[in-house]
Amino acid sequence: MDVDLLRSAVAWRDGRLEIVDQTLLPERFVVRELRHLVEVVDALVRLAVRGAPAIGVTGAFGVVVGLKEAGPPRPGPEGLAAARADLQRTADTLAAARPTAVNLGWAVRRVAAAAARAGDAAGLRRLALAEAQAILEEDRAACLAMAEAGRAELGARSRLLTHCNTGRLATAGLGTALGVVYAKAAAAEPVQVLASETRPLLQGARLTAWELVNAGIPVTVVADTAAGAAMAGGLVDAVLVGCDRVAANGDTANKIGTYSLAVLARANAIPFYVVGPLSSFDPGAADGAAIEIEQRPADEVTRVAGSRLAPEGTQVWNPAFDVTPAELVTAFITDAGVLRPPFGDSIAAALVSR
Amino acid sequence: MDVDLLRSAVAWRDGRLEIVDQTLLPERFVVRELRHLVEVVDALVRLAVRGAPAIGVTGAFGVVVGLKEAGPPRPGPEGLAAARADLQRTADTLAAARPTAVNLGWAVRRVAAAAARAGDAAGLRRLALAEAQAILEEDRAACLAMAEAGRAELGARSRLLTHCNTGRLATAGLGTALGVVYAKAAAAEPVQVLASETRPLLQGARLTAWELVNAGIPVTVVADTAAGAAMAGGLVDAVLVGCDRVAANGDTANKIGTYSLAVLARANAIPFYVVGPLSSFDPGAADGAAIEIEQRPADEVTRVAGSRLAPEGTQVWNPAFDVTPAELVTAFITDAGVLRPPFGDSIAAALVSR
Repeated sequence: MDVDLLRSAVAWRDGRLEIVDQTLLPERFVVRELRHLVEVVDALVRLAVRGAPAIGVTGAFGVVVGLKEAGPPRPGPEGLAAARADLQRTADTLAAARPTAVNLGWAVRRVAAAAARAGDAAGLRRLALAEAQAILEEDRAACLAMAEAGRAELGARSRLLTHCNTGRLATAGLGTALGVVYAKAAAAEPVQVLASETRPLLQGARLTAWELVNAGIPVTVVADTAAGAAMAGGLVDAVLVGCDRVAANGDTANKIGTYSLAVLARANAIPFYVVGPLSSFDPGAADGAAIEIEQRPADEVTRVAGSRLAPEGTQVWNPAFDVTPAELVTAFITDAGVLRPPFGDSIAAALVSR
Repeated sequence: MDVDLLRSAVAWRDGRLEIVDQTLLPERFVVRELRHLVEVVDALVRLAVRGAPAIGVTGAFGVVVGLKEAGPPRPGPEGLAAARADLQRTADTLAAARPTAVNLGWAVRRVAAAAARAGDAAGLRRLALAEAQAILEEDRAACLAMAEAGRAELGARSRLLTHCNTGRLATAGLGTALGVVYAKAAAAEPVQVLASETRPLLQGARLTAWELVNAGIPVTVVADTAAGAAMAGGLVDAVLVGCDRVAANGDTANKIGTYSLAVLARANAIPFYVVGPLSSFDPGAADGAAIEIEQRPADEVTRVAGSRLAPEGTQVWNPAFDVTPAELVTAFITDAGVLRPPFGDSIAAALVSR
């Protein structure tokens, strides 16, 4: 096995920001170094990096790249003022690259706030780097914690259905839902994955299948239309999905199609797990009705690989996410352990103790 | 509106067998005359004609084309023997074009049996043509009957979700589930369609959307992943699907993804209708367990328009159909009226009176 193929979406190696260019997968595996701020922005805009945690980590190191590009730090109050101006400009540029990516703004602001506490320009750079590294290490550690919690929760259940991509290509670590699969494989437990292809952007077919093939874990891709038949046919022991945002009551916004899988799992008495770090829980949203669902461009549905699928004149409804009601979730697998119903209580308790 | 665009999949015009080449839609609308048996077989094999009723009608007229190709009928017992041999050879060739298409074998056998009753070679040809025309007219009449029964059943429900293609491009008439949409439009009742794209072969995006755009009926395409969110979001008044085969108890085999839509409709208290002629009901199958589900090639999932979506080394599970349990069906809309639960009784009664 080529170890390089087991890279995560984003890494910081020997002072270099490296990403796996996901627009080329599964056809080509290309690691790109992002040396300039404009390259970081470009990678974010054209979705070469995707997945909320990976976007956050990339943005955090993007601040470091932007500061380095501004030239050597100068001493004294004028140097600090110039560095702070560079910091502000860099952070604003990065945050604007994908304005709806909550993790991007959060990570960039966190790095900027940490760096702004410095007493001189050189310290500002050191603090920015240290905070970006902290964000990356926290993501890795959260992935490991979720993976082990999920492995313990699943027990002997080995045939796992997942949606979208929630693995190495979505984080700086093992992933969220897919991290549980890696933990089972690492523990030499039997595991096989049914990956729903996840239209319209096909992250399941393109990215999850690629990750698992390269990790030597058996993976079977199904059209999204076949996921229900697979459950009814007894091919699935548990469903594991990631999450974009979880409301205070446990209602969960995630990639479009998640809600359907949750309904189908319930109809077939199959456990349905949401895997995500506590940072994805938003106590400010009382329930799913408070979560706004972004509409994506029609072209994602009407075209694949440049080919037109639907005729001119067709309207398209293309929501990025859907909301799964909390009552369809068996449990949340988080970096603070497994949260069980009633979720209003278990989520509140986990967030308070964090 | 270009009336030509409202053609059905297959027609017999002035002694010519004409089909709409569905492999070119939605990019190009091409009507092909099939003059030779080899052309009919080719159209069936490469899915230029699809949809169970359309396949049957094409096969029926394929017998007529094959007999004509054999040269002028000769008089006397020798002529009859030669014509019977031609008939047998033609029927065998056609039935072998798509061995799993039940309607093809049924229609070809029906034409062959009718023709075989003739007393001379010229009569054999006349009977073959008459039987093929009867099959086509029966299909048209069944479509009209279903369309009107469905329109009456739906009442004011106007926002209809459908799956796959069940319209003019699937039959020699108005279609099955989509025929109900045409009936509403023809009666100047409000109607709009949400079409699930229907992976892997995308009949919803490619064909249903094309038909409806050309008929001037509002159509919105959704990825299959978004159908559940549309139902939960209150965008759907009823779900209408076709059927490939209905068991004696009402369990229904239809295009993969139908089962998921039925479960989602039930979870959201939306009526779920199966529209199909009595000829699709198979009293020989006691329930869904008796219906064998064909697996289709992996390439249908891993490639779209020649582009590779999933990596080498990925396994694929690609069933052509799934089985929707009878208890998820609100009613069957047939050419013999609306059949309601308990379906074991209503189906048996309808089949007996036929």
